Amino acid sequence: VTTDLKLHQSNGSPNLRRVRIFLAEKGVALTQTPVDLGAKEQFSDAYVAINPRRVVPTLVLEDGTAIGEVPAIMRYLDEAFPETPLLGSSPKEKAVVQMWERRMELEGFAAVMETVRNRVAGLKDRAIAGPHDYAQIPALVDRGLERVRDFYADLEARLAEQAFVAGPAFSAADITAFVTIAFATGALQLDIPEANAATRRWHDALAARESFSA
Amino acid sequence: VTTDLKLHQSNGSPNLRRVRIFLAEKGVALTQTPVDLGAKEQFSDAYVAINPRRVVPTLVLEDGTAIGEVPAIMRYLDEAFPETPLLGSSPKEKAVVQMWERRMELEGFAAVMETVRNRVAGLKDRAIAGPHDYAQIPALVDRGLERVRDFYADLEARLAEQAFVAGPAFSAADITAFVTIAFATGALQLDIPEANAATRRWHDALAARESFSA
Repeated sequence: VTTDLKLHQSNGSPNLRRVRIFLAEKGVALTQTPVDLGAKEQFSDAYVAINPRRVVPTLVLEDGTAIGEVPAIMRYLDEAFPETPLLGSSPKEKAVVQMWERRMELEGFAAVMETVRNRVAGLKDRAIAGPHDYAQIPALVDRGLERVRDFYADLEARLAEQAFVAGPAFSAADITAFVTIAFATGALQLDIPEANAATRRWHDALAARESFSA
Repeated sequence: VTTDLKLHQSNGSPNLRRVRIFLAEKGVALTQTPVDLGAKEQFSDAYVAINPRRVVPTLVLEDGTAIGEVPAIMRYLDEAFPETPLLGSSPKEKAVVQMWERRMELEGFAAVMETVRNRVAGLKDRAIAGPHDYAQIPALVDRGLERVRDFYADLEARLAEQAFVAGPAFSAADITAFVTIAFATGALQLDIPEANAATRRWHDALAARESFSA
C-alpha cells in the first residue's frame, strides 16, 4: 500500500529499525524524512513541535497528527491497515501480543539502551532520551549487561516452548526481540549465547525473511 | 457487565489501582483473587505458572489465558468491552492514547517506582520487579526525584493546552497520570506543585469521578 504518511527518522536508530521491519512485513510504503541527530536537529523548534520528547521516529498522519513512541506507531499502522496483523486480531490476541512486545522492550531493548546511554562518552548528560538532561550513572552499565544476559536466558526459555515470542504466530514481539539482539550485538558485543539453540533457530528463520533486511 | 474474568491482585499496589479505575470507568465487574506479596506468594509455583514475571496484577480470561502488564490488561478490556472506550476508537485515537499513556507511565509512574525500589530497605536486592534480583543503586534515588519533578513540569505544560492528557477526551492516559501522582505523593511526599494550576484543576475534576475511589 502506498500512503501519504510521513516518518521522521534517523538511519541507524534501532527504534527506527523496529518500525521499518514492521512496515516491510505489512507492505506499507510511506515517505521518510531524515532527522540529523548529529546536528541535534531533534532539538530544533520545528522538530519539537512534531515531537515534544525530541526523539525519533515520529509518524505524521495525513491530517498532521504526530504519533511518537514505537508501540503507538505500530498500533496506528496495524489498526489502519488491518491486513497482515502484527499485533493480533481478536481482543485476546491483541492483549497477548502487547504483553510480549512490552516484555521484549522493557527487559531487552530498554536494558540495552540504558547500558549504552550510561556508557558512551558522547552521551555524558543524556542518560535518558527526551527533553531533560540526566547525568550518566556508571553502576547502570554493569547492571545493564547483567540484565541483557538475563534477557537472553528468559528468551531462550520462552522459545524452547513456543515457535514465536508471543505464541504460535509471528508478531511485533518477534521484531522487537530481533532488533534488541542486533542492538546488543552491535553496541555491547553481547550476541546470543552459543548454547541457546531455540533462540538461534528462531533468529535464523527471522533473518531469512525479506522484511528483516529493511 | 458481569464477567467470568479473574484478576490476581494485591491491595495497595499502584498498578492494581490503574486497573481498578479502568474497570470502574467501563463498568466491568470480575472476580478478584488476592496475592499475598508479604508472604512472597508471587514467587510460588502456582503464581509463576500464571505470570512468569512474578508481578501483579494478572488478568485471567475464561479460557485460562493469562494477561500480564497493565497496558495489555487495559487493551484486552477495551477491545472485549468496546462500550466507553478508554484507549480510543479510531486507529488515530488508539495511537494517540497509547502514546500518551506510555509517556505518563515511562516518565511518571516508572520514575516513581524506580525511586521507591532503589530506596526502600526491604527491597535491597529487588531494585527491578521480576524473576531476577538486582541490587539497589543509590544514585537512582536522587535522579528519580528529579525525574518526578520534571514529570510534573511536563504534565502542567500539557494540561495548560488540553483538557485531558491525550487531548479533549478522558482516557487511560489520565488514569495512569492520576495514579502516578497518588503514588508520588504517598511514597515520596512529592505532591503536585502549588503553582501548577492546570494540573490541580484537572486532578480535582478526576478525583470527583466515582470511579476514582475504586
